[in-house]
Amino acid sequence: VSLDPGVAGTATALGTVRVVGTGLLGTSVALGLTAAGGRVVLADSSPTALALARDLGAGQPDPGDLPVALVVVAAPPDVTAAVVLTELAAHPHATVTDVASVKAGILLQVAEGGGDLTRYVGGHPMAGRERSGPVNARGDLFLGRPWVVCGSPASDPARVDGVRQLSLALGATPVMATAQAHDEAMAVVSHVPQVAASLVAARLRVVDDEAVALAGGGLRDVTRIAASDPVLWAQILAANAGPVLAQLRALRHDLDGVIDGLAAIEAERDTANGAGTAAGARASVASVVAEGNLGRGRIPGKHGGTPTRYAVLTVLVPDAPGSLGRLFADIGAASVNVEELALEHAPGRAVGLVEVSVLPSVRDTLEHALQAQGWHVVS
Amino acid sequence: VSLDPGVAGTATALGTVRVVGTGLLGTSVALGLTAAGGRVVLADSSPTALALARDLGAGQPDPGDLPVALVVVAAPPDVTAAVVLTELAAHPHATVTDVASVKAGILLQVAEGGGDLTRYVGGHPMAGRERSGPVNARGDLFLGRPWVVCGSPASDPARVDGVRQLSLALGATPVMATAQAHDEAMAVVSHVPQVAASLVAARLRVVDDEAVALAGGGLRDVTRIAASDPVLWAQILAANAGPVLAQLRALRHDLDGVIDGLAAIEAERDTANGAGTAAGARASVASVVAEGNLGRGRIPGKHGGTPTRYAVLTVLVPDAPGSLGRLFADIGAASVNVEELALEHAPGRAVGLVEVSVLPSVRDTLEHALQAQGWHVVS
Repeated sequence: VSLDPGVAGTATALGTVRVVGTGLLGTSVALGLTAAGGRVVLADSSPTALALARDLGAGQPDPGDLPVALVVVAAPPDVTAAVVLTELAAHPHATVTDVASVKAGILLQVAEGGGDLTRYVGGHPMAGRERSGPVNARGDLFLGRPWVVCGSPASDPARVDGVRQLSLALGATPVMATAQAHDEAMAVVSHVPQVAASLVAARLRVVDDEAVALAGGGLRDVTRIAASDPVLWAQILAANAGPVLAQLRALRHDLDGVIDGLAAIEAERDTANGAGTAAGARASVASVVAEGNLGRGRIPGKHGGTPTRYAVLTVLVPDAPGSLGRLFADIGAASVNVEELALEHAPGRAVGLVEVSVLPSVRDTLEHALQAQGWHVVS
Repeated sequence: VSLDPGVAGTATALGTVRVVGTGLLGTSVALGLTAAGGRVVLADSSPTALALARDLGAGQPDPGDLPVALVVVAAPPDVTAAVVLTELAAHPHATVTDVASVKAGILLQVAEGGGDLTRYVGGHPMAGRERSGPVNARGDLFLGRPWVVCGSPASDPARVDGVRQLSLALGATPVMATAQAHDEAMAVVSHVPQVAASLVAARLRVVDDEAVALAGGGLRDVTRIAASDPVLWAQILAANAGPVLAQLRALRHDLDGVIDGLAAIEAERDTANGAGTAAGARASVASVVAEGNLGRGRIPGKHGGTPTRYAVLTVLVPDAPGSLGRLFADIGAASVNVEELALEHAPGRAVGLVEVSVLPSVRDTLEHALQAQGWHVVS
């Protein structure tokens, strides 16, 4: 395992980078650039937060007398635009970028505030949402993650490339997009899924323990991100209200179709005593699931390629240290690469079920190899 | 890894079991009972399906001259009640159960059809939905899975226990519930999550490839079950229309709250030029996410216990055969038990990120042990 060669050179070539805001993202940017040999100075409105970032090795507080080439604004979303404006004015030769997860509103506010749009290039590194605070900061937080770089029509192309180089220096994969396209994409791939997960999870508040105990892998998957921070998400959703509203209204239209279809089936059942021949209503319910099939099929597979259908082996493993080690050692000994995996624990039993996804061509080979080693392949 | 001791004895004690319908579930029941030493006879309206199940080793076609103790109806959901009625009449001393995933409607139809309710006990083994067809049948399909046993007030308690013994003979964990409670629970833990996943995935049909390429782990989790069979799900949702409608209407009420809140924020932004002080609207958006936190927190952890907060280590692994084997061997050598795990592939890079969840008390031990072996622990 090694980092992308040339990372150190790229960080050095950025010149002096000023990081404003030393929370999780700002401190991680600073740690990553420092580790790669870059020159980083720090600023934060809180002296305590600034001292913590320095103690974590993120860099020194900005002495104020160095020429700054690039400013990274990593402030909370609701003050990002104001800080960008301040930094553009204070550093008249620097490129200014930010890391907020919604982009069009900030661009609009920077324009309305009279900021120099040739030097402002928005950014969104897609990492770190699950944890927060500078103590969770890591120089390699962005490794292998997408980093959306949002130049505007007014942006100087050389400065857009500078922000792209920043993302590369931190090991991220730059993705170029307009602010509007970014926000509309986030509404679909991030913000609407968050709302849906929260709405489904909220239904669980009012059911009894016996019902919740029947929760399976499907419910766990759908509601995993429902554990997110409400205050942060209220800010994100509010900042992207337009695109999220458009998507949620479309979703509500589809939901109404399901509700109307089920209501028609229920009404017919009440009158026809169980006959249930509301064929049109059934078709409309089925069509929503079919449309979901099509949408799900568009999500890219690993490494950004087209989705691959893997063959899945389910293997029973005792819930004890070393079990997974033996299993994966045996898989490795069979020279089979694991494409995806999931661990599920059986209710009431001290065993786990491991779902191992492999290329279909090697499935049978692996099954025989594991059975020869005494593993119980369930399916 | 071994099966529950005493399984063979339990299967034998069931007496002759007649399995009606040799699809995935029926064939799996037959294979499991046969493997455990039970006596199984088969029936299916399709001679081809029946011959296939026999060839798979599930048992012999019912010769019709044996006294049957237990009938397992594994027909499609929309004909289950009719088949239960036929079997109750044809085998006047047998207990009759079924495996359909919605229960109250079938009980009602059996009662209305004049079936002997003392001998009918509904069942729902919660396994196998991802795959279908007899060729995917496995005798251990139900191992470690919940099997809901739905006696009615009219059921003979000894016959309810007989169906419970059937689930135990197949390695499942029996869960006792009324048909109504089962259906209401399924609406919340299975049917509404399916609809929500389909609705979110359906939004992906209309966005461009660049947007879909930004899909992260959250979207993948929320939409995983959106790949389900539309025709089967239309049957399931229609059969449980009442409880699903009640839950979907409550969900729509919450969704309307989010939409109204975002619309208020958007309207205020248009008038106040970016000021965005719609505090009440923001609070209502945040409250939906907060309610989702509460609901998500109710989902039981592994082994049915209370949810545990695990510490998560993210480890970078090369995407090559043997990598996971070495990683888990090293984890095992550190005598650390893996509680949950997930494999994520970085877009555009031939490396994977493995998220390993462990008890918080052993997190640092494991991190140091892995680093000593040369692993790159990302966070």
